[in-house]
Amino acid sequence: MVDRELLLFMPASSIFFAMLSGEILSKLASISSSSNLFTSPEDKIAYSYDGTPLLQQLPGAVIRPRSAEEVSQIVRLANQEGFPLVARGSGSGLSGGSVPLEDSVIILMNHWNRILEIDEQNLTVWVEPGVITGQLHSAVEARGLFYPPDPGSAAICTIGGNVAENAGGLRGLKYGVTKDYVMGLEAVLANGERVRTGGKSVKDVAGYNLKDWLVGSEGTLGIFTKILLRLVPKPETATTMLVFFDRLSDSAEAVSAIIASRITPAALEFLDNTTIRCVEDYARLGLPTNLEALLMIEVDGRKAVVDEDADRILSLCRKHGASMINVAENEQDAQRLKSARKVAFAALARIRPTTILEDATVPRSLVAPMLEFIQQVARKRNLTFGNFGHAGDGNLHPTCLTDERDEKEIHAAEAAFEEIFEKAIELGGTITGEHGTGLTKKKFLERQVGSAAVELMREIKRVVDPNAILNPGKIFSPKPRCEGPLPGNRDQLQKFLDQGAFV
Amino acid sequence: MVDRELLLFMPASSIFFAMLSGEILSKLASISSSSNLFTSPEDKIAYSYDGTPLLQQLPGAVIRPRSAEEVSQIVRLANQEGFPLVARGSGSGLSGGSVPLEDSVIILMNHWNRILEIDEQNLTVWVEPGVITGQLHSAVEARGLFYPPDPGSAAICTIGGNVAENAGGLRGLKYGVTKDYVMGLEAVLANGERVRTGGKSVKDVAGYNLKDWLVGSEGTLGIFTKILLRLVPKPETATTMLVFFDRLSDSAEAVSAIIASRITPAALEFLDNTTIRCVEDYARLGLPTNLEALLMIEVDGRKAVVDEDADRILSLCRKHGASMINVAENEQDAQRLKSARKVAFAALARIRPTTILEDATVPRSLVAPMLEFIQQVARKRNLTFGNFGHAGDGNLHPTCLTDERDEKEIHAAEAAFEEIFEKAIELGGTITGEHGTGLTKKKFLERQVGSAAVELMREIKRVVDPNAILNPGKIFSPKPRCEGPLPGNRDQLQKFLDQGAFV
Repeated sequence: MVDRELLLFMPASSIFFAMLSGEILSKLASISSSSNLFTSPEDKIAYSYDGTPLLQQLPGAVIRPRSAEEVSQIVRLANQEGFPLVARGSGSGLSGGSVPLEDSVIILMNHWNRILEIDEQNLTVWVEPGVITGQLHSAVEARGLFYPPDPGSAAICTIGGNVAENAGGLRGLKYGVTKDYVMGLEAVLANGERVRTGGKSVKDVAGYNLKDWLVGSEGTLGIFTKILLRLVPKPETATTMLVFFDRLSDSAEAVSAIIASRITPAALEFLDNTTIRCVEDYARLGLPTNLEALLMIEVDGRKAVVDEDADRILSLCRKHGASMINVAENEQDAQRLKSARKVAFAALARIRPTTILEDATVPRSLVAPMLEFIQQVARKRNLTFGNFGHAGDGNLHPTCLTDERDEKEIHAAEAAFEEIFEKAIELGGTITGEHGTGLTKKKFLERQVGSAAVELMREIKRVVDPNAILNPGKIFSPKPRCEGPLPGNRDQLQKFLDQGAFV
Repeated sequence: MVDRELLLFMPASSIFFAMLSGEILSKLASISSSSNLFTSPEDKIAYSYDGTPLLQQLPGAVIRPRSAEEVSQIVRLANQEGFPLVARGSGSGLSGGSVPLEDSVIILMNHWNRILEIDEQNLTVWVEPGVITGQLHSAVEARGLFYPPDPGSAAICTIGGNVAENAGGLRGLKYGVTKDYVMGLEAVLANGERVRTGGKSVKDVAGYNLKDWLVGSEGTLGIFTKILLRLVPKPETATTMLVFFDRLSDSAEAVSAIIASRITPAALEFLDNTTIRCVEDYARLGLPTNLEALLMIEVDGRKAVVDEDADRILSLCRKHGASMINVAENEQDAQRLKSARKVAFAALARIRPTTILEDATVPRSLVAPMLEFIQQVARKRNLTFGNFGHAGDGNLHPTCLTDERDEKEIHAAEAAFEEIFEKAIELGGTITGEHGTGLTKKKFLERQVGSAAVELMREIKRVVDPNAILNPGKIFSPKPRCEGPLPGNRDQLQKFLDQGAFV
């Protein structure tokens, strides 16, 4: 995607933030000690990209703060000296949210990985932002509790990144997304002030809801230093099923029938034939590769209800033309069936050198027309797409298998995704269900939410981060205060932005 | 509470907003027609107060807009001419959120009362903001669906007011609060722009989360013109129980034991002895008036699970010293038992001329120490308090029975609530669980959230509503832009604010 590349691979001459001078670097070292500051090319290259294809940019430096107070000092220094900051966990994001700008200082948070308190009376957990999501799952499940959000990257991603992007995952239909589990935050704001918002009270309406305004702000409004999450009782049991369909439209009708029957599965996942074939080729699970669609369905809860729901679901699937059904007989078997869905991305990524995975999302009743549209676009543009995703909540992952060295094909992919995003908006959906706007979607944001809403977002950003220190250029282009002198080379930034180089 | 009164009953000479001139009134009439503009004293007096005691102020005029476009035109006119606006539904709020300032124009929304679309495939409902919450309950339950938030005022309050205050209610423990059900909003912003945020996609992370930022903003950031709510399947069945305890501490331990056993009741409500006696005196339900505490517990869901949970709850209550148990045998009986909790406010309000009901909230594990503290404070200050509330989510309603004509007692009540709010903060709770900050809590806001957070809230308000048009003075005092001339008499407002007359 050439315009993504343009965005990041800028010639060294277009410096618009203060260069990181030796003086700045020594001030950074004096905050967090020189052993926590990394400036060599080989150190920086590891932080020049995230999980998003086609985006890469070396940062100016990488720092590992040791305390919230150090984060605050780094933010204050960035304001004084005029350099941008990008907070980063595991860097598994898929919208370029943690890709730096030239001369950004990356604030590494993945070593802040302690689970601080599991409160079994209030069903809450305080964590540091660098805790791996999957490790949190294990820790609370060992106490009979449950943290429902489970992004596909749960084995490697951090809670801090999940909160910054408001990550979704497989259990969204029944359990909601990350936002629904964040009860409190400690954060450093763009001016270096430390705030604490929310707490263990289930109900709290004191003042504006700063917590939910920070969740999903993609590192542009604050840097999290401590996170309080809500837990729920661990479901007593679960049943996992794979259901195969000859026709894609039958699988969509089965999904609608399940929802209409007022059953809410914990997961209701979809794979198309391309994805099934790639998964089988990769993982050898014994999946039939000639069928059009696969639903991975999981119901959880109390034993009596789970059994009854599973029976009703299977009967609805049969009624809507299911041609093969596989029900897990034990936990090991369930993990095997679930892996059919879990390896989808990895399996597709083996086919071609470049894998562009998106998250266009529609109301769940419109999954079938959306899938048909994606297939049409792929055929028209002669592209290979695998489609899978969260059918139950309309959150699809159209995935283009391509090669970044083939400029023509990359252009075609870019144009295809533009059509797909337009269609999602037309159907009342969204350009991004769970990956965030970041760099890759910002050119589509205004089409979805309208110019008044984008203007409002920009104004909010401008007032809380007037020097555009925190992750600038993500979600939308920053609009620094034009009154008064800008620190560093911010007037050059303004010129740069005025020229429209940021979309 | 004298300082609340000072706030509102200001002498006519302290005009700080433009007087509503004949010219402004005729412009308003030309927007919504003269038959929808009310300016006579008898019309205005009905909108001079809400459900909050001790607060009253005549508005300048009352207008009933007929469309979102008219709301937008009124907001634009308010900016040009410099007069404040207060959007209002049923006026049942308990923090003064819809009490006008002198010369405010009240925008009445309670005639916007249509349920526009119940979407059974996506489990959503589009409503106008003036729909009565209880009527929405009935309408969706008739289709086998369920809208869980149920504020105590559900029979009269509007969805628009619920969203503006992020209302809670009895089902918070299991189902969450209003915010958890708002999927989309159409709103008019302070500059008159119309925005639409959110939609039917369960997952949507495009740009900043403007939706959750508008929910609970108490009319200070936007006026809702259309609201999209999430529904869930209606629970198959429910069981209601009343459990009485000799000792308050036993009831608190029973609550902890229920939560610790990983059961999540739909409601877990508490009444103290004062409240039980008032309820019995008022409603003659046959409650024993000699016992210290009553829990009203409801479990809902699938039949098999409800029966099992109800049995486990009763056994836990017995183990923790329950002295009397009453289980509803049918729906009519359940309504009778629930009425013990539902009439609590009305029953307490009969005892003395003035009833001050607050919503100090603590983590649920700290309900017992909080209740003890409230009792101590009441004894020390020689005040009568009834205590009831949502024990399951820590959201208590300490209710002071007093007389506004007794200045000394009102001062004592004021001082008692100040201690209670301080204690809630000390215990990691909040000054307001579900009523909003409004006028009555704003002096406590900074103590809870800190000065950096309040400063951020003010900055946000200032940038989106530079002329402080939308419900000014609620949550915190407005801070108008000081650059450039202010419209109307806004420079006088600035002087007024600088003098600190607003807390």
